[in-house]
Amino acid sequence: MPRRATLVGCGQMGGSLLLALRAAGLCGEAVGFDLDRARLEAARELGIVDVLADSVRDSVQGAELVVLAVPPRALPEVAEQLAPALPPDALVLDLASTKARAVDALARTLPFPERHVGCHPIAGTEKSGPEAATATLYAGRPVVLTPTPRTAPAALDAARALWTRIGAQPSTLDAHLHDRVLALTSHLPHAAAYALAAAVGAALQRDPALAQHAARLAGTSYADTTRVAASDPVMWRDIFVENRDALLPALDALLDELTELRRHTAADDAPALEAYFRRARALRLGRP
Amino acid sequence: MPRRATLVGCGQMGGSLLLALRAAGLCGEAVGFDLDRARLEAARELGIVDVLADSVRDSVQGAELVVLAVPPRALPEVAEQLAPALPPDALVLDLASTKARAVDALARTLPFPERHVGCHPIAGTEKSGPEAATATLYAGRPVVLTPTPRTAPAALDAARALWTRIGAQPSTLDAHLHDRVLALTSHLPHAAAYALAAAVGAALQRDPALAQHAARLAGTSYADTTRVAASDPVMWRDIFVENRDALLPALDALLDELTELRRHTAADDAPALEAYFRRARALRLGRP
Repeated sequence: MPRRATLVGCGQMGGSLLLALRAAGLCGEAVGFDLDRARLEAARELGIVDVLADSVRDSVQGAELVVLAVPPRALPEVAEQLAPALPPDALVLDLASTKARAVDALARTLPFPERHVGCHPIAGTEKSGPEAATATLYAGRPVVLTPTPRTAPAALDAARALWTRIGAQPSTLDAHLHDRVLALTSHLPHAAAYALAAAVGAALQRDPALAQHAARLAGTSYADTTRVAASDPVMWRDIFVENRDALLPALDALLDELTELRRHTAADDAPALEAYFRRARALRLGRP
Repeated sequence: MPRRATLVGCGQMGGSLLLALRAAGLCGEAVGFDLDRARLEAARELGIVDVLADSVRDSVQGAELVVLAVPPRALPEVAEQLAPALPPDALVLDLASTKARAVDALARTLPFPERHVGCHPIAGTEKSGPEAATATLYAGRPVVLTPTPRTAPAALDAARALWTRIGAQPSTLDAHLHDRVLALTSHLPHAAAYALAAAVGAALQRDPALAQHAARLAGTSYADTTRVAASDPVMWRDIFVENRDALLPALDALLDELTELRRHTAADDAPALEAYFRRARALRLGRP
């Protein structure tokens, strides 16, 4: 198990991995870097890292494990910056929520791509920043590993062992297939939540008579369906850019479904509405 | 406080009101009716009602409190059936989630409309049926009362006292205003959840390669945004028919927002995507 770890990007996801590794006794001294100095200081105060680096390059010197937990589109630049100082044996994990472009970019930029394993832990909340990191965020959660043909088996084994030791459930998947699945099971739900929050909020801004009652009368359906609209706009900007090709047909499918529901509503078509709701309920994943 | 109560429609909402009244010692013998005999029997076994009636008309004989907890569009027919047997002093509450048409229909059909108070407790889950009823469902929850100019002040006071005694927070609101607020804070979130569940489910049906991984990799964002798509299709059919006029502009606003998000995604417009997510997050009700 690697002892000396580096965390680049001190947010909820990377912070939670470091906290879990430390809680499991799997990580000695940890070095942190973040473009946002306040976040970096907070990460030290929260016990996520011990030493603060002044640059990505400095942060990886002597590292046995490097965790890249920055927004997906920042990965290539980070990889270029760390390349001159990265030890050849260091295991490099990225935690990007979209994998195909990220893994491809890192494979082209990292000096030792065979020691890199793309990881996507399916966890996290709408909160962000090191304050939202917890040692138990990944306990019992699935983690998708997306090795390429160039990935060394030993690196993949080490990544798998690391996630298993902190209680997560790693499995491997092709990066493109991962992105197409997640477009449906995560990215489209976020699109719906953001659009819903925007539609309701804008309608209430236009009509103060409604707005004065809305917050008091909003129930759990509103709270749950819009919860993830509180997520980090920069991370989601990057996910939508990176996973554009899988997201567009998913967004079209959601627009088609909503258009059909609107048509039945406009037509006062009670049987069609009931059939629509029955079909949607039956299609819901994980239904009892 | 009324002692002898009748419940017409033995689902989660009405069942929870009866259980709460009984737990508070506010209700003696309770008579139940439901078109579905199995639900009616279950309501007795669960302690929601004591006596099972064979018809709506029979159920209200001697009642001091009548709770109408049927799907909104069934209310006029129920009111016609109970009219010949309803005691003049009985307090009649309906629990419909849409109020304008329901209250209007009951005002025209009930023999003593001055003793009717429209109520909408903002509570409930995606579950339905008497098994989902609990004595605490309404504790701490807002309840909208929608009196009309014909409502007797004493009836409104009695309704307010009844909800207060079981720990709910009653307030009054014009029925049309109620429906326009709820179109945004409850009905549109349900539309988004049903459409999202349908879009994701249909896409997975078309692509077995994705479907075999989807359930395992669906995280809390999918679970929360689609939770209410498990709701009762008949109840939601009626809500969409009853509240069509307020729902259509809300559905259009959601379609416009999703179309804008799709446009930014298709254009690879990272700044517009970030601005979109920031605006949506800021517009979300009840944000910290």
